[in-house]
Amino acid sequence: MREFDVVVIGAGPAGYVAALRCAQLGLETAVVDEWISPEGKYVLGGTCLNVGCIPSKALLDSSEQFYRLQHHIGTHGISVSDIRLDLSAMISRKNEIVRSLTGGIESLFSKNRIMWLKGHGRLRPEMRIEVTGKGPDAANETVEAKNIVIATGSVPRSLPGILIDGEKIVDSTGALNFSEVPKRLGVIGAGVIGLELGSVWNRLGSEAVLLEATERFLFFADHEIAKAAHEEFSKQGLDIRLGARVLSADTSGEGVKVTYEDNGGTHELEFDKLVMSVGRKPHTDDLNADEVGLLINESGFIHTEGRTCRTNLPGVYAVGDVVGGPMLAHKGSVEGVMVAERIAGQDSRVSYDVIPQVVYTMPEISWVGRTEEELQADGVPYKIGRFQLKYNGRAMAMEETAGMVKVIAHKETDELLGVHILGFMSSEIIAEAVVAMEYKGSAEDLARTVHSHPSLTEAIQEAALSVDDRALHG
Amino acid sequence: MREFDVVVIGAGPAGYVAALRCAQLGLETAVVDEWISPEGKYVLGGTCLNVGCIPSKALLDSSEQFYRLQHHIGTHGISVSDIRLDLSAMISRKNEIVRSLTGGIESLFSKNRIMWLKGHGRLRPEMRIEVTGKGPDAANETVEAKNIVIATGSVPRSLPGILIDGEKIVDSTGALNFSEVPKRLGVIGAGVIGLELGSVWNRLGSEAVLLEATERFLFFADHEIAKAAHEEFSKQGLDIRLGARVLSADTSGEGVKVTYEDNGGTHELEFDKLVMSVGRKPHTDDLNADEVGLLINESGFIHTEGRTCRTNLPGVYAVGDVVGGPMLAHKGSVEGVMVAERIAGQDSRVSYDVIPQVVYTMPEISWVGRTEEELQADGVPYKIGRFQLKYNGRAMAMEETAGMVKVIAHKETDELLGVHILGFMSSEIIAEAVVAMEYKGSAEDLARTVHSHPSLTEAIQEAALSVDDRALHG
Repeated sequence: MREFDVVVIGAGPAGYVAALRCAQLGLETAVVDEWISPEGKYVLGGTCLNVGCIPSKALLDSSEQFYRLQHHIGTHGISVSDIRLDLSAMISRKNEIVRSLTGGIESLFSKNRIMWLKGHGRLRPEMRIEVTGKGPDAANETVEAKNIVIATGSVPRSLPGILIDGEKIVDSTGALNFSEVPKRLGVIGAGVIGLELGSVWNRLGSEAVLLEATERFLFFADHEIAKAAHEEFSKQGLDIRLGARVLSADTSGEGVKVTYEDNGGTHELEFDKLVMSVGRKPHTDDLNADEVGLLINESGFIHTEGRTCRTNLPGVYAVGDVVGGPMLAHKGSVEGVMVAERIAGQDSRVSYDVIPQVVYTMPEISWVGRTEEELQADGVPYKIGRFQLKYNGRAMAMEETAGMVKVIAHKETDELLGVHILGFMSSEIIAEAVVAMEYKGSAEDLARTVHSHPSLTEAIQEAALSVDDRALHG
Repeated sequence: MREFDVVVIGAGPAGYVAALRCAQLGLETAVVDEWISPEGKYVLGGTCLNVGCIPSKALLDSSEQFYRLQHHIGTHGISVSDIRLDLSAMISRKNEIVRSLTGGIESLFSKNRIMWLKGHGRLRPEMRIEVTGKGPDAANETVEAKNIVIATGSVPRSLPGILIDGEKIVDSTGALNFSEVPKRLGVIGAGVIGLELGSVWNRLGSEAVLLEATERFLFFADHEIAKAAHEEFSKQGLDIRLGARVLSADTSGEGVKVTYEDNGGTHELEFDKLVMSVGRKPHTDDLNADEVGLLINESGFIHTEGRTCRTNLPGVYAVGDVVGGPMLAHKGSVEGVMVAERIAGQDSRVSYDVIPQVVYTMPEISWVGRTEEELQADGVPYKIGRFQLKYNGRAMAMEETAGMVKVIAHKETDELLGVHILGFMSSEIIAEAVVAMEYKGSAEDLARTVHSHPSLTEAIQEAALSVDDRALHG
C-alpha cells in the first residue's frame, strides 16, 4: 500500500493549494479528486475553476462588454450597428479559459511531484483513504497517509419539491451553459451567485426576475451599501423581489410556472428558464465519516477546533467550504496554506477577520471587516467616512460613477473596522484596505498614504479623510 | 489692503489642495490664478484638470474603448459592423468632464470660503501679492499675506528652433484637441506624456512614430518592466525609435517634415501633425522672484529647504511641479497638505519615498519605491519575485493578460523596496503596495494578506510569494 505524508481529498482552491504548499515544504503529497469534465476527463480545480468563480467571471466580463457596447459606447462618440451575439462563441471562450486554468493546475502538480489520484475518496480506519474511480485513468486503490486534509467543498442547495431537471430548471452550473439567451429568466435567490448569474443573462438580453426569500437585500452586507447596490441593479433592469418565498415550479407547460408568496399574497410568474441559486451546502456525502468517527455538525459542516482547521481526529484536517465560514475560494486557499504549514510544524494562522468579500456585479460590491450593523450590535463606538464615486475624476473619465466608498473606524482609536465599496473594480481596490487592516491601521493611515491621480483608489483616501471630516473633494 | 492668513499662487492640484486644507484648518485663504478656459473664462484646476491628467485620461479611456471594439470584442463572441468615430463628440465628452471637475473645485472654494483672485500673481516686497487680471471678473489689487504658497506649476518644454504653431506642430495641450485623427502622427519624446498622447491617437487610427532622444526606453522606470512595456506598445503599432535626436521640423510643405539623427545617420519623416512632448519646465516667469529675493536654482526650480517646501524667504512656501521632484499631481497635492498643516502649526511631513508613479498606457505602468537598477547602484542587497499576468485567472477572464508584477525586497530583512507593475489597471492595484510600504512592510506581509479571488491583485500576492520562491501558481 502506497503511503504519503499528506493526502488531500478535493482539488478545489482549498485542496489544491494545500497540496502545493505541502509539496513546497517537502511533504510527499497526493490529491484525490473525482471531478469529471463535460468531455468525460478527470480535471482539477473543483467548483471554483470548473463551474464557479472562473467561468462566471469570464461570462460576467463578456456580458459587461456586450452591455457597454449597447448602452455606453455612444457617450464616447463611437457608434456601431448590427450588434450581434454569438452565444456559443462566448461560452467557448469561457470553456477555453477553464481548460487553460485547470490544465495549469495539472502542470503545477507535475512540477511539484504531487500524485493525482483520480476517483472518489472515502475515509477508512487507520488513516487510510480508499479511492474508487471510473475509466482507464482512474485510481482504484487504498493509500495510507500520515495526514489527511479534507477539502471536499460544497454543492448547490435546492428547494424541496423543485427538481433541477437540467433543462428548464438549472443550478448555477447549468446557468453557465444555456444554448440561447432565455427571453424570460427566473432566479430563485438574490445572493451572490443569483446576482452574478442573473446579471450575466440580463445584460445579454433576458428579462430577469430574482425571487429572494429574505426581506432585506444582501442582508450580510453593510445595509447602506446593499441599498445603493439594489438601486443600481434595479436601474439596470434586474427585477429583484424581496420577501418572495417560492412555493412551486411547474414545468408541465411550455415554460416554467413559478408560484411564490410575499406579504401581498400569492403570485405566479412564467419563465423560459429558472435558475436555482439558494446557497450551497457542505459536500460530505459518501466520505464515510461515520465509520471513522469524523465529527460533522448539525448543519453538515465538518467540525473543526477553533480556527485551526483540525478535526476531532488526530492528523485529519478540513479546509474550505466544508468547514463553514464564508464560502470563498480565497478563504479556502488560505486555510489550505495554513494546514500545510501546520503539518510541516510551523505555527501558521489565518487572519479570519481580514478576509475580503466580493460580489462580481456591475458595479462590484467588496468589503473587508465589519458592517455598520455588526458594530452597532456589538456596541462598538465608530465613526464613518463616505465618498461618492461620482466626484472621482477617474470614475468620470471611465463613465463608471455609480457607487460609493464607506470607511468605518473606531471612534476613539481611529482603527479601521470595516471598508465597504460599491464601485467599478472594487474587488481590486479593496486590497489596500485589506493590507491596512492586516496592520491594524487607522483611517488616518489610509488618508495619509499618497494615491495615484487620477485613480479610483483616491475615493478610498477621500472616504478615509472624511472619517475625520476633512475630505478634500467632498 | 486686504490681508489673508494664506495666499496661494496657482490653483492646480498642489495649490488648490493647499488652499482647501488651509481653509479646513481655519486659515483665511485666497488663491490667485490666471488660467483662462478656451471659452475665455477664468477656471480653477490648472494644468492637471484643464489640459493634463483629466482630459488625457478621458481620451485615453475613449480611445481604449475604440481599440477594444476593433480588436478584442470578437473574442467574446460579439460582432458589430460599421464602427464609426465622431471625434468631436469624443472631444466634447472630455471637455464636459473637465468642466464638471473645474466647476467642482469652484464649489469647494465657495463652500470653504476661499477667496479666488482671478489674474496673474506677482510677489511684491513685504509679503504682498499684486494681482493683475483681464476682463470684468478679474482682480486688480494688491493683497497682503501672513503666508504665501507658490504653486505655479510647470509648462511644456520645447526644442530650440522648432516653433509650436498650434496647427501642424502642437504641444500636449494641442494634442488633446485635434479636429480630425491625423493620418501620420509624429511625437517628439516617448516619456509619459508622449506615450499617453501617442497611444490615444494610435488607437484612434493614426500611424504614430515616437522619436525619443535617449537610448533607453523609459529610462527612469525599472528596466525589465520598461522592456516588457516597449514590446507591448510595439505590438500595438506604436513605432518607438530610440536614440533619435530631432534636428528640425519644416512646415513649409503640406505636412511637417522632421529630420532626426540616430547612430545610423540622418533620417527624414513626413507627418500630418507633430506633437512636442519633451518634458516640462517649472513655471516661474513673471513671478518677480528677483525683486523679492526668492531663490530659484539653476534648473529654474524654486529652491526649498530639505523636504519642507520652505523657500529661502520666511513665510513663503513652494509646492508641486515648481519645486522639482516627480511632476505628479498627487505629489503636488500632498505637498500642499503638508504646507497647509505646517502653516497651522502641525509637524506634517511627506513620505517622498512612497509616492506611486503611473503611466496611463495600455497596459498601465505603475510603481512605487526603487527600481532594480537604483538598488544595484546603491549596493543594496535585494531579492526579486515576479509573476506574469498571463497566469492570472481574472486577467484571462478580462482578456488583459499582458504584463507582469515585480516585487523587490531587501535580501536580509525582506522589507519591500519596490513594486513594479506592467498591467491592466495597475494604477489602481499599486495602491496596496504603497500602503504596505508606508508601514515598512515586508514581501511576506503582502504574501500573507488574503486577496480576493479572482482578482488582478492576486498577481501581486504571487509575486510577493515568489520573492521567497514559494509562488503557488508560478
